[in-house]
Amino acid sequence: MLMKDKTADQIPDFADIMSAKQRIERDIRATPVLSDPQLNTDLGCELWLKCENLQHTGAFKFRGASNAIALLDENDRRGDVATHSSGNHGAALALAASTHNRRAWVVMPENSVKTKIEAVRRFGGEIVFCPPNQQAREKGLAELVAKGCIPVPPYDHGHIISGQGTAAIEMSEQIPRMDIILTPVGGGGLISGSAIAARALIAGVKVLGAEPKGAADTALSLSQGRRVDQFPVNTIADGLRAIVGVLNFEIIRDNVDKVITVSETGIVEAMALVWQHFRMLIEPSSATVIAAILANPEDFSGQCVGAIISGGNVDLEHLPFKP
Amino acid sequence: MLMKDKTADQIPDFADIMSAKQRIERDIRATPVLSDPQLNTDLGCELWLKCENLQHTGAFKFRGASNAIALLDENDRRGDVATHSSGNHGAALALAASTHNRRAWVVMPENSVKTKIEAVRRFGGEIVFCPPNQQAREKGLAELVAKGCIPVPPYDHGHIISGQGTAAIEMSEQIPRMDIILTPVGGGGLISGSAIAARALIAGVKVLGAEPKGAADTALSLSQGRRVDQFPVNTIADGLRAIVGVLNFEIIRDNVDKVITVSETGIVEAMALVWQHFRMLIEPSSATVIAAILANPEDFSGQCVGAIISGGNVDLEHLPFKP
Repeated sequence: MLMKDKTADQIPDFADIMSAKQRIERDIRATPVLSDPQLNTDLGCELWLKCENLQHTGAFKFRGASNAIALLDENDRRGDVATHSSGNHGAALALAASTHNRRAWVVMPENSVKTKIEAVRRFGGEIVFCPPNQQAREKGLAELVAKGCIPVPPYDHGHIISGQGTAAIEMSEQIPRMDIILTPVGGGGLISGSAIAARALIAGVKVLGAEPKGAADTALSLSQGRRVDQFPVNTIADGLRAIVGVLNFEIIRDNVDKVITVSETGIVEAMALVWQHFRMLIEPSSATVIAAILANPEDFSGQCVGAIISGGNVDLEHLPFKP
Repeated sequence: MLMKDKTADQIPDFADIMSAKQRIERDIRATPVLSDPQLNTDLGCELWLKCENLQHTGAFKFRGASNAIALLDENDRRGDVATHSSGNHGAALALAASTHNRRAWVVMPENSVKTKIEAVRRFGGEIVFCPPNQQAREKGLAELVAKGCIPVPPYDHGHIISGQGTAAIEMSEQIPRMDIILTPVGGGGLISGSAIAARALIAGVKVLGAEPKGAADTALSLSQGRRVDQFPVNTIADGLRAIVGVLNFEIIRDNVDKVITVSETGIVEAMALVWQHFRMLIEPSSATVIAAILANPEDFSGQCVGAIISGGNVDLEHLPFKP
């Protein structure tokens, strides 16, 4: 690499995402894209799903975690890594750390979903349980950092954003034409990386986000022109309950055309549609992108749409739809 | 096409499968292959899953049905098509027929799974219900044929076998190296097409089948040196309950190295493993291939294995494993 990668507290550019792609491509899956003629007819657009539900650890999060850990190696920063997470980032960091011969410590709320706890352990992560609130999670992480762990936060981090942006590069190679790229919006890691990559690769592409009405902090932040740091969260989309990050909001404000908010019933309907047409179970968070098309057909009519299905870590015992 | 394709009652050769591939590739999905480093370590081999669960209609059956219907077009045989089926072939034929502007009639037992009935209807098929026994199914089909429908049986048919063989050609392009190709065995359409293709493409490849002990008519036929036409069927693998076809048995006898029989608990364990490692729900029938590796590690140790995951049409309300 001739160019120096930006540091974790800087907004990455396209060169950082390209270098992330080279850095992680032996570790990640180049996930498939799928389209369904009948669903396309029903939706009135040509929709391609980028199946990050089939990524290692069942979520796109493994891209960012792999890039962040690999960059620690390159910068000769040795030692264990730590984060707090109740879900996909924790499992992704655990696997990425183990792939690079490190240990990952994950501060998890005591009430985390059992399968997610098991996933972190299966990937070699060490769990530190904490009471289920934000202060306890941050305190737990601070204690690990005080003991020498390197913190790797889930989205507000340049190297994580660069890693997440690699999915959009693959999409530009896999999908014949993209008029619109569409991703879920939680903390903003995926959409900010995707936006930087898509803007650089595809002239005139629209970048759209999908966010539950019950976690619409990013849509609210955009409408107020400044990042809100609180929102009364109430959504089934457990992966999108976070507040948008500082770096992430700045990137979204400058590069995303619109964040569409979707209803809970729309999310559940979209999960059922994807099961029906693709025989894939996707997380409620991922289903927001289909819900956005269903609720706003005029924004997508006749367009080629690349939509990122962010993950597939659902609880089989509590599916919210009847097949 | 310069060469004339073989007729439906002949054993196809590799040229027929190549021509099937050209004929159907605009209609089918070139499904992805996936591998998981951790599962590979656990199994002691390099396993690649060919994800026909992500094929249109959720099963490889759409390949054979598409080829058979397209060949009717080429041979100028007009009119509706008909089959009897309680599952994946019926849905596949319905979609393939509708793609080619034909109608498909599917004789289905009254007690068929609700989601499979809905799938046939969603793909435009017309259902004729019958009592749930083989005689009634065949009588229903005979009546449709008497009315002028063209019968398209599920596996004992050269054009169906050629279509199913196209998955193995894709695998040979997608997987770096294949020492073994491994497929489930029901009526024998998939394994016979796969065997013909693999033998032509990969010198020295082993072709292995996986069959439930509770539907081991093919293993029994091989051991007796002649096709049995009855077997007391008792297995969760609803896609593998058929008796091996006449053409199919002949191909298997001459081209398949071994059919491994697997237990019901092995099948369920394999379904859970695939969910855990790939976040895909696969049919019990598909899980037989993983169960075969788990039960016979010595046959696979150190080998590169391409295994066909035949379908993903499971009933979400009655999953046989606890995640």
